Amino acid sequence: MSNPAPLAELWRGDLLESLHTGHAVICDSSGQIVWSCGNPDTIIYPRSSAKMIQALPLVESGAADAAGLGVPQLALSCASHSGEAQHTTRVADWIEGLGLSENDFRCGVQQPSHSETRRTLLLNGEAPCQLHNNCSGKHAGFLTLNRHLGAGAEYVEVDHPVQTACKTAFEEVTAMDSPCYGIDGCSAPNFATSVHGLARAMASFASAHTRSGVRAEAQSRLVQAMITHPELVAGTGRACTELMGAAAGRAALKTGAEAVFVGMIPETGFGIALKVVDGGTRGAECAIAALMVRLGILDANDPAVLKRMNAVQKNWRGIETGIIRPAAHLLS
Amino acid sequence: MSNPAPLAELWRGDLLESLHTGHAVICDSSGQIVWSCGNPDTIIYPRSSAKMIQALPLVESGAADAAGLGVPQLALSCASHSGEAQHTTRVADWIEGLGLSENDFRCGVQQPSHSETRRTLLLNGEAPCQLHNNCSGKHAGFLTLNRHLGAGAEYVEVDHPVQTACKTAFEEVTAMDSPCYGIDGCSAPNFATSVHGLARAMASFASAHTRSGVRAEAQSRLVQAMITHPELVAGTGRACTELMGAAAGRAALKTGAEAVFVGMIPETGFGIALKVVDGGTRGAECAIAALMVRLGILDANDPAVLKRMNAVQKNWRGIETGIIRPAAHLLS
Repeated sequence: MSNPAPLAELWRGDLLESLHTGHAVICDSSGQIVWSCGNPDTIIYPRSSAKMIQALPLVESGAADAAGLGVPQLALSCASHSGEAQHTTRVADWIEGLGLSENDFRCGVQQPSHSETRRTLLLNGEAPCQLHNNCSGKHAGFLTLNRHLGAGAEYVEVDHPVQTACKTAFEEVTAMDSPCYGIDGCSAPNFATSVHGLARAMASFASAHTRSGVRAEAQSRLVQAMITHPELVAGTGRACTELMGAAAGRAALKTGAEAVFVGMIPETGFGIALKVVDGGTRGAECAIAALMVRLGILDANDPAVLKRMNAVQKNWRGIETGIIRPAAHLLS
Repeated sequence: MSNPAPLAELWRGDLLESLHTGHAVICDSSGQIVWSCGNPDTIIYPRSSAKMIQALPLVESGAADAAGLGVPQLALSCASHSGEAQHTTRVADWIEGLGLSENDFRCGVQQPSHSETRRTLLLNGEAPCQLHNNCSGKHAGFLTLNRHLGAGAEYVEVDHPVQTACKTAFEEVTAMDSPCYGIDGCSAPNFATSVHGLARAMASFASAHTRSGVRAEAQSRLVQAMITHPELVAGTGRACTELMGAAAGRAALKTGAEAVFVGMIPETGFGIALKVVDGGTRGAECAIAALMVRLGILDANDPAVLKRMNAVQKNWRGIETGIIRPAAHLLS
């Protein structure tokens, strides 16, 4: 956590009201740092930004193909979705196809983050279920792999074959041992790595299409699935979905809890990872948008970019009261 | 914003996952700093933590007594309430007593922060109105003062007599000129000061009962109103309400947006002000609880304190995944 750099600023009137600091790394396909700020060696939990890594054993084992998973299901396996019908119906069909039910999940019940869906559930007198958990796609992937492996039902335990496979893949693509793990919001273990390690992993995904082999093929399929279905990776109005839409196929992006954000740019093989020290999501969204502009992938004037990189703050009467903008060094 | 100190830490597994830094000052009734961390001279917007200052002209002018305001109304004039019926019915009665209506507010429409109230509105097909705005009590105070002054309807404009009176009081109790102002969520101007200036102002309130005069009497009445009605100052389950309840009359506490928190301790005349640099409310709540424990006002084992100072993080299945705790130097 030491020596973080400014990443995003909230200005109100003529005063810097709040400041988000953190660590960010852009690295190339060889793992070399192209640009960084803060301390690249800071150890972090990638949280949900590691989902495409956690999906590697699903694809590499042959479990995904054996279960006939399509591109939408691969995108959902990497998703932190909003619990909209477009997400939950696909995940429900997926696990039904496995002969499993919502009871087999171990992610827990979560209210959908999509407010209209929450409102509809309430007005219909319906309760949310595990399908609405933002990680239900990842867990459907875990269940698919688990059936392939023939292992026990408690697939989120850290020594379960599903999770040991995830850990092995994680340490391989980050190119370092994971020093520790924590339990994530969805009950799965989340392995720690450095910001540099996470960027290295993302560069490995971004450049996978230039390599051959089981690993590279799996990485490339997952990146393409995310790029093909931005709406399944997050949801309506969300940063991952809107910024990937604005990037029009040139980048895959993924957020993680406590203000982690990663990016993969296939045309250069660059990987990006950043962590805002305080866990403030608005800071991470602002910073990733700025770095994508820096790299020429996003247009600073695109509405999806402006919404995060020059986020005008309005009050209850619609009056502009402030703006969130990136620290200048992210763009220069 | 320079040289902030650690205030609150989020631990997950064996790793410090996120960190909130900031500035905090405790000062005595003479304005001298008793304890501080970070940079006491940092200029901040107090946001809603300045509400008892904004209520001074209401009381000092005689407007409050002329309108027959009781102790609950004085507490509501200092409140960022949750929009519960206990708040909105009192504010509605108050402005009706002035011969005014909800249309006279300039705070804007806000969904109540109290989830059960939001749910009830939705199920009843009712829309929130300006009464639900967390600042409607402060604005009822502005309207009361405004009628007393006989000024124009646009009472939130910075050069309106209501706001110039607030600015004068603000600069007097902070004992410094305000370098700038911003527009708050409720459209009123919010004057900037230093963390030390805000703590000085709070000490002035805390020690008011030892002085005489119009200012001291008004300050003392407002502090007592907050202490008498913690439930009106915030709402069910909220930090100000629960921590004041736990303090059992020994302290008044008030939060402000972007992670400001202030405290007033009448028995010592101490004032407290803190700002978390990144605006993360969980960090400010943790830090103020810790400082109240440090000062012997709150018991570290009180459930209301534990909820903020050792905030166990549980995931969707109720599994403990982490804990938010104060930086060690706040307590030692």
